[in-house]
Amino acid sequence: MFARAKAMEVTDYLPRIAKDLGIDQNRLAEIHKTGNLQLVKDHIVPYLRFKREEHDIEEGTVVFLADNPVYARGFPKIRRAMVLRSALKKHMRDGFQVEEKLDGYNVRTIYIDGILSLTRKGIVCPYTTQHIKTLLKGNNFFKDNPELMLCGEVVGLENPYQTKSYPEARDFGYFIFDIRDRTTGKAVSVAERNKLLKKYSLPSAHNFGIFTAKDAGRLLGLVRKLGNDTREGLVLKSLDMKQQIKYTANRSTNNDLKYAFKFPFDYGQSFMFRRLVREAFQAYELGLSKKEIEKEADRLGRSILIPMIDTIKKIASGKETTEDFKISVPDVESGKSFIEHLKHLGVHATIEKISESKRETIVSVKRHYPSTNDKIKAYLEGEFCSD
Amino acid sequence: MFARAKAMEVTDYLPRIAKDLGIDQNRLAEIHKTGNLQLVKDHIVPYLRFKREEHDIEEGTVVFLADNPVYARGFPKIRRAMVLRSALKKHMRDGFQVEEKLDGYNVRTIYIDGILSLTRKGIVCPYTTQHIKTLLKGNNFFKDNPELMLCGEVVGLENPYQTKSYPEARDFGYFIFDIRDRTTGKAVSVAERNKLLKKYSLPSAHNFGIFTAKDAGRLLGLVRKLGNDTREGLVLKSLDMKQQIKYTANRSTNNDLKYAFKFPFDYGQSFMFRRLVREAFQAYELGLSKKEIEKEADRLGRSILIPMIDTIKKIASGKETTEDFKISVPDVESGKSFIEHLKHLGVHATIEKISESKRETIVSVKRHYPSTNDKIKAYLEGEFCSD
Repeated sequence: MFARAKAMEVTDYLPRIAKDLGIDQNRLAEIHKTGNLQLVKDHIVPYLRFKREEHDIEEGTVVFLADNPVYARGFPKIRRAMVLRSALKKHMRDGFQVEEKLDGYNVRTIYIDGILSLTRKGIVCPYTTQHIKTLLKGNNFFKDNPELMLCGEVVGLENPYQTKSYPEARDFGYFIFDIRDRTTGKAVSVAERNKLLKKYSLPSAHNFGIFTAKDAGRLLGLVRKLGNDTREGLVLKSLDMKQQIKYTANRSTNNDLKYAFKFPFDYGQSFMFRRLVREAFQAYELGLSKKEIEKEADRLGRSILIPMIDTIKKIASGKETTEDFKISVPDVESGKSFIEHLKHLGVHATIEKISESKRETIVSVKRHYPSTNDKIKAYLEGEFCSD
Repeated sequence: MFARAKAMEVTDYLPRIAKDLGIDQNRLAEIHKTGNLQLVKDHIVPYLRFKREEHDIEEGTVVFLADNPVYARGFPKIRRAMVLRSALKKHMRDGFQVEEKLDGYNVRTIYIDGILSLTRKGIVCPYTTQHIKTLLKGNNFFKDNPELMLCGEVVGLENPYQTKSYPEARDFGYFIFDIRDRTTGKAVSVAERNKLLKKYSLPSAHNFGIFTAKDAGRLLGLVRKLGNDTREGLVLKSLDMKQQIKYTANRSTNNDLKYAFKFPFDYGQSFMFRRLVREAFQAYELGLSKKEIEKEADRLGRSILIPMIDTIKKIASGKETTEDFKISVPDVESGKSFIEHLKHLGVHATIEKISESKRETIVSVKRHYPSTNDKIKAYLEGEFCSD
């Protein structure tokens, strides 16, 4: 489809890219100078990625540097309702489709000489690519629609980003929620997307149907129920796809907190704070009784304190607190090179064990959280806290 | 004692101040240029204050610009033990005196033509000064020891900084914990301080006596007991005053959190985060059982969620959430000028009511928290959260 254009400099591409993306050429040159348009060379086709949102170009937008550059626009931020009733009244005039929000990691998939899967931040992930290649084997979607991009959530235990199992996808599943033009990022309408999902039998998140702002109470109840089933929440989509809103259950928020407080010095404080505030708004909007609020508060407190104490105990006993997960790879070599890939992303992971069988190679990985381990160790040894 | 030297420029004082404080003259000039040495002109004697710690000069150090400058060195940071046993073993080789830490605000008092009381950050507080003047009326401490500085905690309901009542000081009490040379900041020894407190009948925080690092278990129990009595914790002082360590009860930490989560968008996220971590370390060190940890966690969760929900409810009902307190002043005029003084400190307060009697004038004050009120109102009206 295209020749690798190694001899060309990045700057040679900028006029063409600026034109394709509809952005001023000087502006793009400036963005490139600031380092926000990062060149990734270690891929078979070198690519540029927007590390941050810039002038309506989404964070994670990728440009593959072929003779004719190929684009994968970043997935737009979906905004979160804090008070569902009011947010729907304000932002959703007409009917909207309600779908389940799955708790995994956002993956865009495009086709250039083959399947390529990108993380939210615009990194080609060899591990995800390999698995999605397998999932989409024999599927004609990209043959018929080469300019479209599949956007979906990868869930399951076997990945290095967000390990949560679902009954429908214990180890690795990919559920499509949006289909977009890869160059403009424009989503196809809800109806068109539903049609394409059906036509190509693409797996998708559960579709609860069409609702209106008047159904806020029912949706709150639905979110509550999803939470009780240890699921995350909902995404609401206007039928023209011009508005999307997410809303998640307190139970799921508690799970995030449990996780973050296992590694308290490695997670951002605002990550925690935002979740505490969210829980209060949801408890308020649900109109919980005093007793129910207390129960909600107890659960919240336990999601904070218990993981922290467990981590302190573990470190006090001389062990390291780590995050352990498994990945399934075709062979040992690709397992090792994937760990290297994670290191480039700033994830400090090491291989714990490799189990080879005829069918697959399972690599057990440990992710390390040095700040949490070092800080807690220092306190345990008597170091002061300065506040 | 000194003439007001209005005609002199601040820079004229710098060589003398540098000499007195033992700091390089050019360094001090630089600090002055950065704005960290702030001139406060609205006091009867203009003064300079160190807004931050600089080259061993403590934050809140004040220099009164008389012909012979008068100093009030800032109160040093007392470091906090996270794990009491280890901190004592590491930092307290010998016996140390254990005193109660009261939960109020830190006030240094010196004498220059009269009593002057300073907040931690080095602001002359007219309200505190007036009350401490009354408390120390007829006391000869400063007559006999003009170069010394009293350092203590103001507690009680009637103040604008930290309103917490104690049985021994419902409205306003001043409890001395350190006595220091006002120019060098050097503390007199524990024995000497105990002697001076006794000689001049100065009120002081409760003294639990002399302990050693081996008593950590007993001290943990004592802190726990203080917490259950809704008191804050302990300060441990080496007998030569070269080392001080603070340690406070989880119950007291919970009270801080309750307060902060009433105004979640006005308090720093690190204020909250540090307290969550503290609670985990204390629960760990106390060796609590699973059941006890759950109880501790429930209490923590309730200190976070319930105040936030109460605040959301209040704002949803169209009211403003504020902090209300009373101050006792000699007359209406001084009440009003004190509110002005608070405004200069960045505290947005308004007078709610004034009750005059023969004995005193009580001003009811409302402190406003605009970020919390605005942000919650916006969410209630359907504004998105961007995360």
